[in-house]
Formats: sequence, C-alpha cells, structure tokens
Amino acid sequence: MSIQQVNAAIITIGDEILIGQITNTNSAWLGQELGNAGIRVNYCISVGDRKEHIIHALIEASKFADIIITTGGLGPTKDDITKFTFCEYFDTTLVENEEVKNWVTKIFRLRKLPIIQSNLDQALVPKNCKVLFNRSGTAPGMWFAQQGKVYISMPGVPFEMKTIFTEEALPLLKQNFTLPFILHRTILTACIGESFLAKKIATWESNLPPHIQLAYLPSVGQVRLRLSGYSSDEHKLTAEMNEHIDLLYTLAGEYIYGEENDSLQQAVGKLLLELKQTLCTAESCTGGYLAHLITSVPGSSAYYNGSIISYANEIKVNELGVDPQILATDGAVSEACVRQMAEAAREKLNTDYAIATSGIAGPSGGSDEKPVGTVWIAVSNAQQTVAKQFNMGDSRERTILRTALQGLFMLRSMILSCN
Amino acid sequence: MSIQQVNAAIITIGDEILIGQITNTNSAWLGQELGNAGIRVNYCISVGDRKEHIIHALIEASKFADIIITTGGLGPTKDDITKFTFCEYFDTTLVENEEVKNWVTKIFRLRKLPIIQSNLDQALVPKNCKVLFNRSGTAPGMWFAQQGKVYISMPGVPFEMKTIFTEEALPLLKQNFTLPFILHRTILTACIGESFLAKKIATWESNLPPHIQLAYLPSVGQVRLRLSGYSSDEHKLTAEMNEHIDLLYTLAGEYIYGEENDSLQQAVGKLLLELKQTLCTAESCTGGYLAHLITSVPGSSAYYNGSIISYANEIKVNELGVDPQILATDGAVSEACVRQMAEAAREKLNTDYAIATSGIAGPSGGSDEKPVGTVWIAVSNAQQTVAKQFNMGDSRERTILRTALQGLFMLRSMILSCN
Repeated sequence: MSIQQVNAAIITIGDEILIGQITNTNSAWLGQELGNAGIRVNYCISVGDRKEHIIHALIEASKFADIIITTGGLGPTKDDITKFTFCEYFDTTLVENEEVKNWVTKIFRLRKLPIIQSNLDQALVPKNCKVLFNRSGTAPGMWFAQQGKVYISMPGVPFEMKTIFTEEALPLLKQNFTLPFILHRTILTACIGESFLAKKIATWESNLPPHIQLAYLPSVGQVRLRLSGYSSDEHKLTAEMNEHIDLLYTLAGEYIYGEENDSLQQAVGKLLLELKQTLCTAESCTGGYLAHLITSVPGSSAYYNGSIISYANEIKVNELGVDPQILATDGAVSEACVRQMAEAAREKLNTDYAIATSGIAGPSGGSDEKPVGTVWIAVSNAQQTVAKQFNMGDSRERTILRTALQGLFMLRSMILSCN
Repeated sequence: MSIQQVNAAIITIGDEILIGQITNTNSAWLGQELGNAGIRVNYCISVGDRKEHIIHALIEASKFADIIITTGGLGPTKDDITKFTFCEYFDTTLVENEEVKNWVTKIFRLRKLPIIQSNLDQALVPKNCKVLFNRSGTAPGMWFAQQGKVYISMPGVPFEMKTIFTEEALPLLKQNFTLPFILHRTILTACIGESFLAKKIATWESNLPPHIQLAYLPSVGQVRLRLSGYSSDEHKLTAEMNEHIDLLYTLAGEYIYGEENDSLQQAVGKLLLELKQTLCTAESCTGGYLAHLITSVPGSSAYYNGSIISYANEIKVNELGVDPQILATDGAVSEACVRQMAEAAREKLNTDYAIATSGIAGPSGGSDEKPVGTVWIAVSNAQQTVAKQFNMGDSRERTILRTALQGLFMLRSMILSCN
C-alpha cells in the first residue's frame, strides 16, 4: 500500500506575534509533534486579530494542506475573534455547548472565584464544530471537517494548546488520516559540548544509512540526539535502529543519561527511588534553581529532603558551619567551601547524598583569579566527597543552568559508582 | 499632513522552521524593530526551501504589504534557493558583484581558510538588486524596488540578519517611506485573572480612542496590557497616552507592579535596594523556585540572604522550629505552619522580610479538605505576619509558578504599606 504525504498548515493568530511582543513557539512545537506523527508542515502563517486577514489565511492554507491548525484568539476578551471568524468562514452560528459550560463553571467553583458572563461565553462554539476538551483551561479547542480538509482551532496559550493537541487533536488525526511509519528515538546526553560530541561520534554518524537521519538538538548543558527512521518495514527498521544506538552507547555512553523525554532530574530521581536513598542540596550560586529542578519532578518528596540556600556568607557560616577562616583565605568560591557545604548539609538535613554549589554567576563579582563563570561543585555521601571546578561562561542565566545540571550529573556518577 | 500606514510582511524561508527544529525568532525581532520605526507587520509566513512556495508567498505578501522582507535560503549549499527564486520572480539573472567578491575573499584570507567556488558564488546577485552589505558574514542582503513595493532579502542566521537590517536596510526604509509615530506602552499586572482585569477596566477600555489599541498578553499568574498609539503628532499622542494610563492606575493600580519589561522579581528587588532592606525565604511547595526567581536578578545578593527549603517535615521542625504539634493537628499546609516558617526564617537568616510557602503541588497528596493546588503563603516583617490561602489549580508546574509570584506580590504589598 502506498501512503500519501499528509500536509498541514499552521495559522497563528494575534497582533502580539506580528509586532514581536511574543515569539511564536507554538508553530515550532506543532511542527515537531506533527512531524513525529508523520505529518509534514509546509506552511506557517501569522496574522493579526482581524477577521478578513484570518479568513484569507484560512483560504490560502487550505490550498496547501489537508490539515489546517489555528492557535490564538480564543480568549474571553474583545480582541479575541477567532470563533466569530470561523462562523463566518463556515457560514454558521455560535451555539452553547453544555459540556464546556459545566467545565468552566466547575473550574471557577473549585478555584473559589466568581464567574462572569465572558467566562460563560467560553461555552459558545460554532454549530458545526466538534469540541476538543481543554483540561488545562476554559477555552475549548474545536475540530471542523469540511470538503476533505480538517480544521483545528486551539487557544494560543502554549500549555493549553499542548494539552488539547496531545490529548484530543492528535488521536483524532491518527484516526482520520493514514500516516506513514516513522520511528523517532532520542538519546539524551549532558555535560559534553555539541562539537566535542560530534567529533566523538563522527564515524558512527557517517555510517548511518540514508533512511536514518540524525539531528543534534542542543540546549544549555545538554545535547539531545534525535534519530528519525523512515521505512515501510517497521520490524526491520526497529532492529536496525537498535543496532546503531547500541553502538552509540559504546562510543559516548559516559555522557548518556537517558532516552526520549527524561530530564536529568527525572533520571536521578528514578535512581534514588529505586535505591531508597535520599538527597539534599546546599546552594549558593544556583540560588534555588537546583532545588527547583529536583522538586519539579512529581513525587520528589520521597527522596529529596530540602536545601539550605546560603546566598549570604553569613548563612554559610551560621547554617552550614563553613569555617569563617576558609571564607577569609580561600573565599566562598573554593574547593574547601563547597566540600564543607556539601558535608554539613548531608549531616544536618540527614540524607544519603548532598550536592553543593558555589560560584560567580555574574555579571559582577569576577576577578582575574576567579572570573565570572567560575564555579565549584561538590557531591558527598558517607564514604566520600568529590569536588570539581568549572568555568560556565559569562552569562548569569546559563551559569545557573549549567551548574545545576553538572551537579546532578556528578551526583548520578557517584550513585552509579557506589551501587 | 496625513500619514498613510506603511505595512510590512515577513517571509521566513527554510524547512528547519516548518519542522520545528528551530524556533522562528527572526520574525519576532523584525516585528519589534519595524514597529518601533512606525512600520506595522501585518503578515508573517514561513515556507520551505521550494521555489513555487516562495514565489507564492512573495505574491501573497505583496498584496498585504508595502515592504516584503525575506530571511533565509542565502547560504552556499544546494538547498539555498532564495536568490534563484528572486531572479525568476523579477525575471532577471544573476551577476557578479565586485564589492561582495572582494569582501568574501578578504574574510577567507583573514580566517586563513581555503576558499571554494560555492563561497565565491555568494558574490552572485540578481541584476536588479541593490546590495545590502553584510559586515557579519558572507551572504549579502539584497534590496529590490518594484511597482511601489520594496523587497528586502537577508540571511536567516539571526546575528547576520540583525546586522544587515540595522546598518543597511532600516536607514534605507526611513529614506524611502514617510513613517508615522507609534508609541508602545506596556503595563504589568500580577495576581489577577485576565477576565477579572478586563471586567474591572471594561469602561476605560471602551473609551479608548480608535488610534490607541489595547492588547491583553497573559502568562501564568500575570497579564501584560499593551497600549499601541498611532499618530502624526508625537507630543499630543504621548500626553494622551499618559492620561489613559493614569486612569488605568486609579482603576487597577493595586495589581500593577511595573511597566515595560520589568519582571515582578526585578520590581521587588528595586524596592528592597532603595530601602536597603533584606529578604529571605522558607519554601516548601515552591521547592526553590521562589529563591530562583529572586536570584535570577543580577545583584540580588545585595538584598537576598538565602532560603531554607523544608521539603521534608523533619526540616520544618529541625531547621525552622515549626511546632510538631501543629504538623500533627493542622498539617504542613496550614496557616499556623507558614506563619511559623516565615517568622523563624526571618529571625534565623536575619532579614527584614521573609516569604514562606507550603502547599500541595500535586499530582498526589491532595484530600477532600485540602485538594491539590491548596497553598498557604505568609509574608513577615518585624511588625506583622500576613498569611493567605489560595487554590492554584491542578498543575504542579503552574502551582509552583503562581505561588512564587503570589508570594512576591504579597511581599511587595507589605513593603509598600510599611514604607
């Protein structure tokens, strides 16, 4: 059976995108998700909150695509006109949807907030649409089928759009279109730069067959390697992919902490849960970001006790018992200081492991000897404390991010080597 | 003199945008820069590296706009077809540009790199174009004028595009078009929902004149109100805008924490710096995110001492002296507990103010009496401790975000009322 390429167009609606007040991240996210499902985006357009422009975009997009997706313009305020525009486009009217009305009412009751007419109006939808339930908000998504084309309308708020797309729209798309088999695998690496990784796996990469494509997806402190395989033989492709990935592990396994969508903090959390061990942190330069990463994982309270954020040196001395003499001679950004921080936190907060960070995030505070970006990290357990120095670069934001990830990565190594 | 609105369209060219491998940041940047110059972007479109799609986009864009800007597709590789496409669109041919050839040759000589034919081909440009010099790279920008419309083509690499636009294209646009004065003002609110805010200011909003437009830009826990004014009389518009904004403050001032690009944590930081006062935090459900927000501001070490993150109850008792009896009777998510946390942190970490959070971020841990999303927040200074209960909804991530922002907002109110 030959499979025809299914094409999609994305229309983002809202003046705020055109004037650049917000960056259009919805299109990129949808482009990836649709691609993973075997649907190719071949047209993205952004238009303002004006009916004639939206209608023109719908007409244009339907020339290029089988699936037309709009985001934005579904809020409760006057400048949100997407629903009215769809009514005009499909020559229909708004009707009240009971399910949405009950949901909106329930949300407001649960949050103990009074409900007003513009909230209730969220339950008005074009007569010809199928409602796509929005578990994350009050504006429902909508699905229209007309003349062999599918139109999907979702709110512009990214998390609401993502919920509706993943839970409602994508399953329906898979039912309505015959899609090719695409196998995506993502290998997650941390604490190695993109160009170093590329050099390490250069031969492996050039030996990949043409139907398996590799993409480097770098973010601060991490590189994801995405392999996309295209084939009509699912079984053969899966076996082939596994072989290449096994080889990748032998080349760069020390930097690989997981696969698919795991975050480093999730991977570390899983290890601690399995081993029934506990963790605490003592943060200076990361200022709570390390704790935030760890506690962003649901269930982290099972293995994470807490943190002492000693931003001021006074707290390092009073709460973590760092020797004032060390602060005077070595400074707060030193091996001796992070070692004491990690060991004191582990004992005081009564855990198996501790991570401590101290560094100069900048923009001020640097010196010739310790420039901005200088960071010391220590990880500690009952047997040993390991400390390392890094330079994380001259951006405050990236130094905080990289330091937190590096701390988690060092902890992971210690856990694996001890168990 | 009446000034006609000058409109622009942006066409971004490249498969990598459509499949979501990169996020389209060029459009947002250009939207801002053009807007600041009084040029309104009313159309953005992304197309792949296919000639017929690019030509279709050029035809469409020229229906909507006086200025058509393309980015991308100017590199030296096979998939870069923008120049050939412009030749077809304008029915012309490529010719060698001496200036560009010398520049490309010079760059390769300076970098001590061998030059190959595809590099030299960068000097080939359509016969009818004016070259826009690219100080940051080898692909030149191009300027075409035809039938009252201007077409600008620039590379997709953001820093090259920005250099060409700022140094070459924008000055030429200002020479070629009579531009109106546009004034943008952004008013920042927190801790009020979009629909409530809209209701509060509904009469004010409907009294805005047609040449001042209002947009609601909501994100988790915050709504930015953007006012855009269009006029030929800069002085009159500025005065008029100020009047409307003054009125907005009388209606919703309690929720306004700043203007333009300030974050709530920056606004609070400025207050503390001015007053030479200090802050610490005691976090449970926010798990370090509140500390992270505060310390993401450069210079925050001047007013922020640190935090005790008491994720485990044991830490609440041992480090913050919370009465175990309270934990047994009221629970950790209670008024009594956050009050003790805030007061203990303030005294122990020796600061003027403290914020404490305790709640059920979920997804587990909820009960009928205290469902997921139940949060207590306390702010404390030497005179008083104020505690409030909230329900932040059922998403772990958003509960953490909203709680941190609400804590900062309560602190801001306390600082303002005490000083």
